Amino acid sequence: MKLYTYFRSSAAYRVRIALNLKGLAYDAVPVHLLRDGGEQLQPAYRAVNPAGLLPALDDGGAAIGQSLAIIEYLDETRPDLPLLPADAAGRARVRALALTIAADTHPLGNLRVLKYLTGVLNVTEEQKLAWLHQWMSAGLASFEQLLATDTRTGRYCHGDTPTLADCCLVPQVFNAQRFQLDLSPYPNIVRIHTACAELPAFQQAHPAQQPDAE
Amino acid sequence: MKLYTYFRSSAAYRVRIALNLKGLAYDAVPVHLLRDGGEQLQPAYRAVNPAGLLPALDDGGAAIGQSLAIIEYLDETRPDLPLLPADAAGRARVRALALTIAADTHPLGNLRVLKYLTGVLNVTEEQKLAWLHQWMSAGLASFEQLLATDTRTGRYCHGDTPTLADCCLVPQVFNAQRFQLDLSPYPNIVRIHTACAELPAFQQAHPAQQPDAE
Repeated sequence: MKLYTYFRSSAAYRVRIALNLKGLAYDAVPVHLLRDGGEQLQPAYRAVNPAGLLPALDDGGAAIGQSLAIIEYLDETRPDLPLLPADAAGRARVRALALTIAADTHPLGNLRVLKYLTGVLNVTEEQKLAWLHQWMSAGLASFEQLLATDTRTGRYCHGDTPTLADCCLVPQVFNAQRFQLDLSPYPNIVRIHTACAELPAFQQAHPAQQPDAE
Repeated sequence: MKLYTYFRSSAAYRVRIALNLKGLAYDAVPVHLLRDGGEQLQPAYRAVNPAGLLPALDDGGAAIGQSLAIIEYLDETRPDLPLLPADAAGRARVRALALTIAADTHPLGNLRVLKYLTGVLNVTEEQKLAWLHQWMSAGLASFEQLLATDTRTGRYCHGDTPTLADCCLVPQVFNAQRFQLDLSPYPNIVRIHTACAELPAFQQAHPAQQPDAE
């Protein structure tokens, strides 16, 4: 299995965690988001993933894009150490938590969006940081509410084993810390992030541990 | 089953299509995104969905949020007329297409984001429209590439029956048309949108056909 990845890509980080939690070996193929106007947009990578987005998984057939689709695929084809609960209601909750990060939070702080804000709309660095904090805090506040109001929250986001929700939460907390967001309003998130950070699967997926880390 | 919905919400529109395609009856509970500073943020709705986001599905237990999580839940609990293919690779492709809209495209044109652009960053109406076109065209171009380069594309996004991918595509095209985006660079999208628009399931889910339409 080959994973096209970039060390600081939040979406690639999610998939690296998932692969590690499931104990699956893979070859990392670095794609540099900033070199040559973005290697992900060049023909070589477009031949792998026509969408021109990271990450992508090559498992023999057509490459699979989109981190959540990749993780669901891994869970379906390698059912040991599942990342989704056994019951439909639990799976719905875990997917909703994951999407609260992957759809509602992360896309607004993406590199291409920040480049547009500064390059086209000429916002200041201060305004850029306020933008990042606005959407990260909105997303993390929703996530915290979903954790705080549900008895299914455990040592991790859903029960006492890590799921797809934790795979999404940890990279978002990494981003929040990188941009100095105050995490004290989100005690469940902080607690769960600490619990995840103790596990080798999360440690080894960290951006600083990647072969292409700068 | 109760669906908390707003006629023009793209995410609620996806779920309405899915419910109709699966032939499932539901009660629509309108939540007005603009009234009272957003009814979705008020305590009455927060008691249903603590995340304060639309849509949400009430199927007896805890309400389920996030359109894609709701559709997966419906497909798991009501397996007739499936919205995901039978094979893992096909499911991965359909989910990746859906996320290309739901994660990469739609969140950047959301109401709250547009309000921030005009209200906080003081962008002009012209700049707002350029922003919308930028992200809609990027997302639709990726989607078009995924359709054009894959033999699994059929009358609909994946084969000859509608899937989760079509549930996401049609509301995004509605948004694109609402903001006068030129769709001619995306012939597969236009063709599939036309095929979907012929089906009653899509027609009845259209914003203009909702009880809360304005």
